[in-house]
Amino acid sequence: MSTKRNKLMPMTENSAKWYSQVVQYAELAEHSPVRGCMIIRPYGYAIWEVIQRNLDKRIKSAGVENAYFPIFIPKSFLSREAKHVKGFAKECAVVTHYRLKEDARGEDVVIDPEAKLEEELVLRPTSETIIYDAFSRWIKSWRDLPLNINQWANIVRWEKRTRPFLRTSEFLWQEGHTAHATKDEAAKEVARALKMYHDLAKDLLAIPTTMGYKTESEKFAGADYTTTIEALLRDKKALQSGTSHMLGQNFSKSFNVKFVGRDNKEHYVWQTSWGLSTRIIGGVILMHGDDKGLVLPPKVAPIQVIIVPIWKDKEQRFFVEEFVENIKRQIGSKVRLKIDWREESPGWKFNEWEMKGVPLRFEVGPKDVKKGSVFAAFRHTGEKKSIKVDKDFTATVMQILEDIHNQMYERAVEFVEENTHYVETYDEFKTVASDKGGYVQAFFCGDSKEEELIKNETKFSTRCIPMKTYEKLGPCIKCGKEGHLTNFARAY
Amino acid sequence: MSTKRNKLMPMTENSAKWYSQVVQYAELAEHSPVRGCMIIRPYGYAIWEVIQRNLDKRIKSAGVENAYFPIFIPKSFLSREAKHVKGFAKECAVVTHYRLKEDARGEDVVIDPEAKLEEELVLRPTSETIIYDAFSRWIKSWRDLPLNINQWANIVRWEKRTRPFLRTSEFLWQEGHTAHATKDEAAKEVARALKMYHDLAKDLLAIPTTMGYKTESEKFAGADYTTTIEALLRDKKALQSGTSHMLGQNFSKSFNVKFVGRDNKEHYVWQTSWGLSTRIIGGVILMHGDDKGLVLPPKVAPIQVIIVPIWKDKEQRFFVEEFVENIKRQIGSKVRLKIDWREESPGWKFNEWEMKGVPLRFEVGPKDVKKGSVFAAFRHTGEKKSIKVDKDFTATVMQILEDIHNQMYERAVEFVEENTHYVETYDEFKTVASDKGGYVQAFFCGDSKEEELIKNETKFSTRCIPMKTYEKLGPCIKCGKEGHLTNFARAY
Repeated sequence: MSTKRNKLMPMTENSAKWYSQVVQYAELAEHSPVRGCMIIRPYGYAIWEVIQRNLDKRIKSAGVENAYFPIFIPKSFLSREAKHVKGFAKECAVVTHYRLKEDARGEDVVIDPEAKLEEELVLRPTSETIIYDAFSRWIKSWRDLPLNINQWANIVRWEKRTRPFLRTSEFLWQEGHTAHATKDEAAKEVARALKMYHDLAKDLLAIPTTMGYKTESEKFAGADYTTTIEALLRDKKALQSGTSHMLGQNFSKSFNVKFVGRDNKEHYVWQTSWGLSTRIIGGVILMHGDDKGLVLPPKVAPIQVIIVPIWKDKEQRFFVEEFVENIKRQIGSKVRLKIDWREESPGWKFNEWEMKGVPLRFEVGPKDVKKGSVFAAFRHTGEKKSIKVDKDFTATVMQILEDIHNQMYERAVEFVEENTHYVETYDEFKTVASDKGGYVQAFFCGDSKEEELIKNETKFSTRCIPMKTYEKLGPCIKCGKEGHLTNFARAY
Repeated sequence: MSTKRNKLMPMTENSAKWYSQVVQYAELAEHSPVRGCMIIRPYGYAIWEVIQRNLDKRIKSAGVENAYFPIFIPKSFLSREAKHVKGFAKECAVVTHYRLKEDARGEDVVIDPEAKLEEELVLRPTSETIIYDAFSRWIKSWRDLPLNINQWANIVRWEKRTRPFLRTSEFLWQEGHTAHATKDEAAKEVARALKMYHDLAKDLLAIPTTMGYKTESEKFAGADYTTTIEALLRDKKALQSGTSHMLGQNFSKSFNVKFVGRDNKEHYVWQTSWGLSTRIIGGVILMHGDDKGLVLPPKVAPIQVIIVPIWKDKEQRFFVEEFVENIKRQIGSKVRLKIDWREESPGWKFNEWEMKGVPLRFEVGPKDVKKGSVFAAFRHTGEKKSIKVDKDFTATVMQILEDIHNQMYERAVEFVEENTHYVETYDEFKTVASDKGGYVQAFFCGDSKEEELIKNETKFSTRCIPMKTYEKLGPCIKCGKEGHLTNFARAY
């Protein structure tokens, strides 16, 4: 708490700086002394908890059970699936020793050279290998299928360039892992999980996402195909916000996950995996934020309504407090509400809660008490108006929060529409990419070399082949061969 | 799922073997390919989720906020607090490299020697150091105090001998960390957290625990004093089930956590930390289990009521299903209920749910439907009786679950009383320790050397100085000096 106030860089001026300042000033997260790792501060973690609770319910209602697997993966496990190891081996943190000892002078600790592990352990960059090793023991017969497991865990990928939430060396996520008797069933699960992420982004975070397929070069290392939800954010970059992979039988063959079918024969299972991480919080910040800071959609906001009481003397405070406590009793069980009684000026408090993105602010001074109303300020529009505290007040507030959510979602949808540009030639692609940004939509053949070339020339990578327009085929902007309509964008 | 059934070792014959079989057969956890690390299976994890939800509520209602700190601790951080490093440096997993690469033949992956970390990173064995480094940035003035933070996280301690839940190289826990302006306030927080654990054990897990102080040699490395809740389990060993530490100013001085007080001067904060882990699940298993397997207290049971329908033909199944679905509609929102429709024999199902410790089983066959009742079997006593499904059925079932909880708790209290033996001489101590086991209660001076001697001779270590009898002083059984009444026991 301090009366000094940091000035926020306008988003339009330098979105990267704006982002890191919002993360800092809204007390969402901070850099830790460990390179690339962040500390998620209480306000940021509270957002994650809301997301977790919401997603966990969706996961469980789909018949998926939570479990927990070791963070350590024997190095040899990574090598078993040939494509997987290439995708993940490079960025791993490796444990080589299991003991420290005091140095000769007894002043410091050093690695005990005698405590070297026989086989190095990798900190999970994802858990397919260690989980499917367990699946190979748990699955015997078709009766054991489908096997639907999820875990909430920390993940370590040693990233070169990091940004809080968007890309950190350690992050939090959930990873779902399922095994099925048939390819068709697995494909349905891939689609179900993706739709679940899409709905979560829409219903909870007011983020419209595009469901689509990744190209060969962008798919998960070890998958037959990868589906993704992609969000286009205010700085016109796209965020891969959740992925759902069809693993086919790649891992079941490497890890010997077999079942005896109704036909009494042995078969390899068909598998899927899907994950969503703390990264999505970066999406919330960059989708809705403005020059005053964070703007949180009501459903994910840890504080949905902040009440700022205004008083000059004891007597005023008495009446204001009575009024405000009544409001708390009336709506406190339906709305995540906080009353800010701190000894700071109202203006200072307004700034703070605006920076922290609280969707709705009620100012309550002696005049409001007299009128029996609150003076409401809407974070997402800046609109202000008096609201009567009558018997319908709870319903009114709930409706307002619902409306805010819908308006924020609609605004985001419009933004995506405005910033999606269909192009017919590669020249046009390059012009739009450099002049307008956002999504550039073009027919593309999917060839990995052409993809890399485009990326090197324009910094635009394929984000996905949208499912909605999957059937649309046309001549590739690069080579003329037939291809799908594909979304390109700068990515995080 | 299999029709083969494993026979359980009787608890009285070999409690260690009984324990590991229950963990396996009830599908709570299993050993992983990584030495000392377990996989928590869905049924075991569901128990942890109930504990988490319950404890998280208690933590939040005490004004503590959740956050998340990196799993990596720079090696130098551990050395900063002299006693802390001695307590924890020895059993640490150490990350030395951050990249793997393909070997020369392209067939395997090996550590990339160029990717050596400048400073080794230790996987958190506990997070005081990394959290208090952050506290030193977050705390400026008395207005920032108290600062109450909690995190749910995985912890790594490289243990030599491991047992699922009770002692594993990786485990899950919560760790609370608070900073206060005064010693008195910190002491109150230490007591609050301990009482919270005590109440959780009693109210949720039906485990009576003794609140007490650890001796000098058993206290947390870096604490002024450590308080603990100790549970005496069926095999007459004691489990340290949760601890709450007064850290004094030891860490605030090492990590420079200072605040400007109302007196405008700088002071070091007073700190506490407290934790409870997946270990407590081992306590639940060993407190309540019997020769048929796990026995879960209703409040922590993922499934509180298992309905086993019994039918011979389609027509019977139709009526049984109708009846059972009605029960589900009636009590399903109040009770965690499962209906077992699998195509196995009722006897096979009874065994399975008994092994899994479900507190209450309803058998429902055509005769029960006719009578409008269920045939209930109580897991904790083996008692069976018919219960009418009338309009009060929900209340009846809720009351039964409450009664089961109370009976299990009372039974546990009696067990602890029966197995607590006060002794007046060291000879008596040795006799009781070897013949009876359980708690041996004696006056003890607290001297660490004498404590070690007793432990070496009897395998009994000090568990705690119970708070209830803290004022009782008497001559130490070993040296005659004045000491507190102290509980000794074999420990996990």
